[in-house]
Amino acid sequence: MTVPPHVMRELQDILGPEAVLSQPEELITYSYDATWAEGIPDVVVNPTTTEQVAAVLRIADRERIPVVPRGAGTGLAGASVPQGGIVLNLARMNRLREISPEDMVAVVEPGVVNQTLQEALQPYGLMYPPDPASLYMSTIGGNVATNAGGPRCLKYGVTKDYVMGLEVVLPGGQVLRTGGRQIKNVTGYNLTQLFVGSEGTLGVITEITLRLIPAPAARATVMAAYARLEDAAETVNAILSEGILPLTTELMDQACIRAVERKLQMGLPTEAEALMLIAVDGEPEAVHAQIRRVAEVCRRMGADPVEMATTPEEEERLWIARRSVSPALALIKPSRLTEDIVVPRSKIPAMIRRIQAIAREYDVMIPTFGHIGDGNVHPDIMCDRRDPEEMRRVALAAQAVFEATIELGGTLSGEHGIGLLKREFLPKELGPLAIEKMLAIKKVFDPNGIMNPGKVFPKEMEIGE
Amino acid sequence: MTVPPHVMRELQDILGPEAVLSQPEELITYSYDATWAEGIPDVVVNPTTTEQVAAVLRIADRERIPVVPRGAGTGLAGASVPQGGIVLNLARMNRLREISPEDMVAVVEPGVVNQTLQEALQPYGLMYPPDPASLYMSTIGGNVATNAGGPRCLKYGVTKDYVMGLEVVLPGGQVLRTGGRQIKNVTGYNLTQLFVGSEGTLGVITEITLRLIPAPAARATVMAAYARLEDAAETVNAILSEGILPLTTELMDQACIRAVERKLQMGLPTEAEALMLIAVDGEPEAVHAQIRRVAEVCRRMGADPVEMATTPEEEERLWIARRSVSPALALIKPSRLTEDIVVPRSKIPAMIRRIQAIAREYDVMIPTFGHIGDGNVHPDIMCDRRDPEEMRRVALAAQAVFEATIELGGTLSGEHGIGLLKREFLPKELGPLAIEKMLAIKKVFDPNGIMNPGKVFPKEMEIGE
Repeated sequence: MTVPPHVMRELQDILGPEAVLSQPEELITYSYDATWAEGIPDVVVNPTTTEQVAAVLRIADRERIPVVPRGAGTGLAGASVPQGGIVLNLARMNRLREISPEDMVAVVEPGVVNQTLQEALQPYGLMYPPDPASLYMSTIGGNVATNAGGPRCLKYGVTKDYVMGLEVVLPGGQVLRTGGRQIKNVTGYNLTQLFVGSEGTLGVITEITLRLIPAPAARATVMAAYARLEDAAETVNAILSEGILPLTTELMDQACIRAVERKLQMGLPTEAEALMLIAVDGEPEAVHAQIRRVAEVCRRMGADPVEMATTPEEEERLWIARRSVSPALALIKPSRLTEDIVVPRSKIPAMIRRIQAIAREYDVMIPTFGHIGDGNVHPDIMCDRRDPEEMRRVALAAQAVFEATIELGGTLSGEHGIGLLKREFLPKELGPLAIEKMLAIKKVFDPNGIMNPGKVFPKEMEIGE
Repeated sequence: MTVPPHVMRELQDILGPEAVLSQPEELITYSYDATWAEGIPDVVVNPTTTEQVAAVLRIADRERIPVVPRGAGTGLAGASVPQGGIVLNLARMNRLREISPEDMVAVVEPGVVNQTLQEALQPYGLMYPPDPASLYMSTIGGNVATNAGGPRCLKYGVTKDYVMGLEVVLPGGQVLRTGGRQIKNVTGYNLTQLFVGSEGTLGVITEITLRLIPAPAARATVMAAYARLEDAAETVNAILSEGILPLTTELMDQACIRAVERKLQMGLPTEAEALMLIAVDGEPEAVHAQIRRVAEVCRRMGADPVEMATTPEEEERLWIARRSVSPALALIKPSRLTEDIVVPRSKIPAMIRRIQAIAREYDVMIPTFGHIGDGNVHPDIMCDRRDPEEMRRVALAAQAVFEATIELGGTLSGEHGIGLLKREFLPKELGPLAIEKMLAIKKVFDPNGIMNPGKVFPKEMEIGE
């Protein structure tokens, strides 16, 4: 027990007894994320205001108690999994404070669910582009803490491209405001972007100012099947060379196609090496012209068949295949290790071939899908955690995937973060100097190392203890 | 003299004697930027490689000699003006190392001129969006160090949105690599964005990896004259509500219109309170549809006349008015203080009215123009530096402009930086906590305070000495 009784009483005084959870059955609800990592907190607090968060961080810093900020727990890196200490659950700070169509910004509390924001923006004809697959559950605070991506990033960028300003509570309880509501701002260092993607290791984000864009009026999709994987990858470049920046360029490899077809029996081409879903959006006139050119490019690159969808209903039919990848894979094996690598777009075919070779070498199944336009693919190493011998091969395969990624000039995480599960690989990608500077920056904000310890940085490099 | 003879010899050994300048007539060339700030360096070095930059920073850090990195010296905040010490001129590090159409990235040395890059990209059908007015002279390194903007930012964002990775030499000579060539990257803290806009106070950028986008195929412009300033500002929101994200929304106030008309006699409406130039770009089909809708909106908001240009020749004729603002103002008074404020878009009319009131109060002329879609306007306080009484009023007017900006929720600098000229105003905008953290971060990278001292932060807050 790292939280002594007098601290429990203090927390109850500040937050009210109903907002401080410490029963085992309550704690277990906050012990996991969307990975298999687990850890029980000593206490869960549910603040509703910045002042309450500040009070909690003042106590925690004084008592040197670890604090793990938590959104919806949909993370895929173990970043919000506690190892004792206080879980600071931000789900109740879920007010949409402001939508300003004039300034095209939204000001939200961290617990606002991504989809809730999307729906609130519709009447204004505005859009917040980042749309991680978890958007129906995951919170904007969590999205910011992990710099979440999604399929639309090739065209619209990732979460960081939309965060204009933050309110952050620092260990000790000081409240820092960064950025503002301006696209242009060169006033001192960019502290905002330090917090984006910092996975709760620097402070607790309590308010977020987001840039919005006008919602595009139209969208259309092409689904194209390829006998050769390389031709699918080449298609992305061919489309870009036409001056078209697609909304999405989703790829499913053969293992994914077969898994989905087994589940849905929708007549997918199971002999194809790759299936691509390419969407464009914008003004109706341009969308219609562009999607026809996209279909032509796909055919020219050898795709067959090529299907085009220009109405929401037709599109829905095509997208169901892509959205069924995860549930379909779940039918094959009880567990999987979802990787999140990014390589330069030109290296996508080489990377997927390497993944296939690694799967053969370690005798594991690794279906791969992802957003190849931005180089981000998710090789899912299928496994059964009850089989220790298989788990040993899974761990070796994961290591081999990371090594291949770094060799091809890539990065370990595109949109999920480093968290608990990838931290030992960080030095290999970044080298000692970058990590030394990052740790020194952490010390500037969190001198006692209370913020989400054990995450991002390898264990031996941590502050404190 | 802060650079002792043995250091001069060391610099000559490393760089070759011809790359080390110390004659008064040579030094004076590096004593100013595009403001009236001035300061003579002790020595100017012209490195051509990262290794040479590292050697210079090793010596400078050991000897505690200030280093001022310099691009083309087109800055508008005094950030590259030395106060003794070493000027590190990066103009000769001007190789375009790579253009990858496949990955849509360019890798450049800091001395590459913005326009040189733009031209090199044309054959690939690619574009690097940031286009500061100085693009024919200013360097990418300088653009990154000041997070430069330009008229296209409303649609395409600023320099920071295109910087994917950096190579930076730190004081002491260590070489840090940040980011990579991926749009998606959540691997540790975002060090890249710390350096963007840091005005040479943290290290020397020696290589930049830039994100590129497909060049849009078509463009069109509307020029609209407004009897009432408020109607011009309202037009931007009305266009955005139509779901159109314009490329540019440039505004000239009456003082600018009259100055240009006096110079060019091109028949501009000198009784109009505001003239707007609104451009859209994209697919030809969409551009033609959009520009007609833009013209309609302008008319609906009371603009008269409204001119439309859809060919490059017609567009050129309209844009000449906007591009002549600076030269036309130069005919009115010998000098001017060019401000660079940003306010929320909804506050633009209020801000311009405040500027007009300030001009009356202090009896100075303040023509205002700018990129109102992103809230960034440039009030130019006209002056004659030989008239000390006027200069006193100019300083008071500048202070009043800053205070109004902060009151309206704005920021001191949108695209020029803080440098030497605005540093005393920084605490008012950011508050003590943010500045304390920024200075602690500076100390992480530059413990001896040799990098561009006297810039960004107020004098009494500096590290060292």
